[in-house]
Amino acid sequence: MQAKEVLLVLTDQWADWEASYAVWLVNSVPEYTVKTMALDKQSKVSVGGLRAEIDYAVNEYTKFENLAMVILTGSFSWKNESHNEIADFVKKAHDLCIPIAAICGGVVFLGKHGFLNNVKHTGNSLERFQKEPNYNGTDFFVSAQAVADQNIITANETAALEFAREIFRTLKIYTDEDMDDWYDEFKNGMVR
Amino acid sequence: MQAKEVLLVLTDQWADWEASYAVWLVNSVPEYTVKTMALDKQSKVSVGGLRAEIDYAVNEYTKFENLAMVILTGSFSWKNESHNEIADFVKKAHDLCIPIAAICGGVVFLGKHGFLNNVKHTGNSLERFQKEPNYNGTDFFVSAQAVADQNIITANETAALEFAREIFRTLKIYTDEDMDDWYDEFKNGMVR
Repeated sequence: MQAKEVLLVLTDQWADWEASYAVWLVNSVPEYTVKTMALDKQSKVSVGGLRAEIDYAVNEYTKFENLAMVILTGSFSWKNESHNEIADFVKKAHDLCIPIAAICGGVVFLGKHGFLNNVKHTGNSLERFQKEPNYNGTDFFVSAQAVADQNIITANETAALEFAREIFRTLKIYTDEDMDDWYDEFKNGMVR
Repeated sequence: MQAKEVLLVLTDQWADWEASYAVWLVNSVPEYTVKTMALDKQSKVSVGGLRAEIDYAVNEYTKFENLAMVILTGSFSWKNESHNEIADFVKKAHDLCIPIAAICGGVVFLGKHGFLNNVKHTGNSLERFQKEPNYNGTDFFVSAQAVADQNIITANETAALEFAREIFRTLKIYTDEDMDDWYDEFKNGMVR
């Protein structure tokens, strides 16, 4: 069986922690393999100073039949740049009913490109963002830490664990009970 | 002012989430810059599938006067390999009173190489590890999520946030109150 690909889309100044639990869980099962994607194949530097190598430039990707999910990890540069080629790629994947997961700045990017216009669960500040295209704040949030609706998962920057849980629920790897146990351990710690 | 370096030591199969909050906070202030170090300069692949480029091979590092901290992020390979050259490097830094921070497998590595023999705060399973050199389990933990003692910070794999907080306290960047606010937001979320 060929593992299906889950693409982690990175920009410069990507946030180290936001998709970290998600990619660990996804890449640890044989059904999936995590690959990185960006506008080009130059390594992308995180806010923590890590240089991550890029597997695919967005324009060269053709294997949609083997694509299980697209994850847009947060960064400041989502807000400041348009990234139209990534928007075109996300639209193609979304039209093929491939789930899209976005956190923090990735959610702003989805809002800016119209992907959230029919999504009802997003909360106060994101609605504000949708109404005000020039809104450039970092204090937006959704109505819960992370939510899945209409094949789109959104989360705020403090919700790395909840984001991972929603991604794993969508990919249907473990049971909800197993995921709840995992979440409880990482949310509350081993030592209480 | 030249930024002091904080070295993130990576091995293959490094855990994406464990030092992710820490490197973000450290690298976001002008006083410090995060650089990666490994046995050699080959990129190291995380459990989440990210290939991180390496700034320094351990044997080529000489700038101890500009070194503020060494962070050993977890990975399965700490347990299975000896990494003697990294142990020699950590000993040299520790002898110079440079703080060492280790999480998960990094703590096992410190225990295996004798760095924790005089550290009193480590908990049950780590004491067991110290008594049984061939202990190779993954279920060890320290007596709190993260603790700083005698210039060594230790944390378990579920304690990425607490690990970051201890690191930032040690580096004395923000006030304890600011760190508590930061911790509360990321531990409990924006939406409650």
